[in-house]
Amino acid sequence: MCKRIFMLLCLSLLLVPAGAQTTSPTALGRQEFPRIEKDGRVTFRIKAPDASGLSVSLGKDYVMSRDAEGVWSATTEPQVEGFHYYSLKVGGLSFTDPAVHTYYGTGRWCSAVEVPERPAAAAFYTPRQGVPQGAVRSVRFYSKVCGEYRRMYVYTPAEYEQNPGKRYPVLYLQHGGGEDETGWIYQGFADVILDNLVADGKAVPMIIVMNSGVAHRAGNPEEDAFEDLITQDVIPLVDKRFRTLADRDHRAVAGLSWGAKQAYDLGLGHRELFSAVGGFSGIIVIGEFNVRNPGFQDPGKFAAAYDGVFRDPKWFNDNYHLLFISTGEAEGSLLSQMSALLRERGIDNVYYASPKTAHEWLSWRRSLYEFAPRLFKW
Amino acid sequence: MCKRIFMLLCLSLLLVPAGAQTTSPTALGRQEFPRIEKDGRVTFRIKAPDASGLSVSLGKDYVMSRDAEGVWSATTEPQVEGFHYYSLKVGGLSFTDPAVHTYYGTGRWCSAVEVPERPAAAAFYTPRQGVPQGAVRSVRFYSKVCGEYRRMYVYTPAEYEQNPGKRYPVLYLQHGGGEDETGWIYQGFADVILDNLVADGKAVPMIIVMNSGVAHRAGNPEEDAFEDLITQDVIPLVDKRFRTLADRDHRAVAGLSWGAKQAYDLGLGHRELFSAVGGFSGIIVIGEFNVRNPGFQDPGKFAAAYDGVFRDPKWFNDNYHLLFISTGEAEGSLLSQMSALLRERGIDNVYYASPKTAHEWLSWRRSLYEFAPRLFKW
Repeated sequence: MCKRIFMLLCLSLLLVPAGAQTTSPTALGRQEFPRIEKDGRVTFRIKAPDASGLSVSLGKDYVMSRDAEGVWSATTEPQVEGFHYYSLKVGGLSFTDPAVHTYYGTGRWCSAVEVPERPAAAAFYTPRQGVPQGAVRSVRFYSKVCGEYRRMYVYTPAEYEQNPGKRYPVLYLQHGGGEDETGWIYQGFADVILDNLVADGKAVPMIIVMNSGVAHRAGNPEEDAFEDLITQDVIPLVDKRFRTLADRDHRAVAGLSWGAKQAYDLGLGHRELFSAVGGFSGIIVIGEFNVRNPGFQDPGKFAAAYDGVFRDPKWFNDNYHLLFISTGEAEGSLLSQMSALLRERGIDNVYYASPKTAHEWLSWRRSLYEFAPRLFKW
Repeated sequence: MCKRIFMLLCLSLLLVPAGAQTTSPTALGRQEFPRIEKDGRVTFRIKAPDASGLSVSLGKDYVMSRDAEGVWSATTEPQVEGFHYYSLKVGGLSFTDPAVHTYYGTGRWCSAVEVPERPAAAAFYTPRQGVPQGAVRSVRFYSKVCGEYRRMYVYTPAEYEQNPGKRYPVLYLQHGGGEDETGWIYQGFADVILDNLVADGKAVPMIIVMNSGVAHRAGNPEEDAFEDLITQDVIPLVDKRFRTLADRDHRAVAGLSWGAKQAYDLGLGHRELFSAVGGFSGIIVIGEFNVRNPGFQDPGKFAAAYDGVFRDPKWFNDNYHLLFISTGEAEGSLLSQMSALLRERGIDNVYYASPKTAHEWLSWRRSLYEFAPRLFKW
């Protein structure tokens, strides 16, 4: 997690005039590269006198050029603001850049660069002196569903340990495809966002539970067991080990991208467990998994989905406190269309679009910042 | 930290007959390589059809050979049991192996392979069902000494939250050179070791505080500020935020390699703060920093060191509850000599040699397992 603190440190120093040249907050210690240029292009540099044919892959491949001392460099096209995974490449082989921290993304430990917001508006996910800090706990547990030891991260708010008699609501929060339970802390700064929101009186103190969304059934590793993992192993364990308010009114679920689908499946499929659902940059999948989502468009399938949760819009609106849908503006209109279609069908929902950002963590930090203050005030 | 849980899982599955072929516990999910052969050799494999001249660097460089499908592989000489950092190399460029988790070591996020103990005796650092778990907390704080936000890990024992009126002793625990505050959790399993020791009634429940040993003075980044960081920022913060027993009798410090030197400097240099010191695979440095340690050999310099802490052996033995020195057997005799020389001079100490292991984490897990049960029973 050292990556995290360096990134936080750098972000806090990044409250610089719009458009200044700066080092990516993902860089290690005293590295100068990757360097974010004034116009959002990113320059990468690596010393490798004996290598040949180096390139950097960030959205597309950029051939690096070698100087007389064997230092290779390349500058990309301008990148949208936010957090982007990338690789260095040689001979078709992708590898991490030793100049930066690694993040679990793309199914492995991977390099990333962060193009800061301009003008800098990062305060909501950077630590502030004087703001009481919650704790992020690493909780190891044996999952009967998966037949294996697993690990979750559990955030408890700063006041949790000062109030041994008080119970708290719980948000279950999922990462995206190729990531794991570390994502919302290292890439997402969920703990910092909540610390700041709570200190500012904007959000109710809550527990946040983060699990890996990759879960295989014990004895049948081809079968996805995520829903059972959460409902049969994780929720009972969290309600036993932490001082939770263990009812649906005090339990929410959210996720991003693939994790948004999982959040919808959990939240809409288990009305007995959850009363609020958030999907960041991801779709409600009804029937076939397809981004155009033909099942979702079909009124019959729509009404039958999730054991009929949408059949009676009044029932839904009375019983679900929040259905929250968000996207990055640069992702296109798919999710605004989904939100509008739900409204047409009488299903209340809150829609948020993150200005200028893409399918990446700045969109999701902002989504959490918009989502969390709406929770548990009903 | 996902690396951690996979490694724990794999270790728990590794209770296999001595000498069986197995995948390194450091490998990602369903990877088969790196593979530990029956005789301790390690086979690495990576698919890279367009690459040329790949090698793997583990102690020395091994040239990889390419098969018809573009899969490169190499098998090393037999390795001693334990945890070893390694790199893949191409054209002189070192990079991480995408098949494994990354660990902060060698000053960057780095690959590692673990050669399991044979016969498997890993139980003390693998989780056991039914053993109550402590929590590992990520604590972000502003250091005035360093002028920056930093992060420490704090382990609290399982019973900590069940006993809101109870206070606990504290062990400050340091990593080695090129590593950071993540080392004792990811590579060292300090939390699992303590959970097991406490559950077995062998160790007193204690808080463990882990900081990065890299600390630069605010305004003067060339000056090492580690001692002031710990004494001026960290200890006061820990004593304020956690329910500690805040006196020297309930405060110990230990570290490994470079961190052992730091632990000796802290523990022997601050008798007002610490009453127990442990050094794993590292020397007490008196005068010149040199592994043969001429200053340490000189009786005059020895007596003057650390403001005279060793001058009166009786005073030392009466006032320090524990001086613990350990090494891996494969590291040679330097530390057994240091222990013997201290005894010759009347300074009580406990010496432990980890069977067969080298300057690596298996030595240090075992050292913690031997050290922790001796703490705080005075």
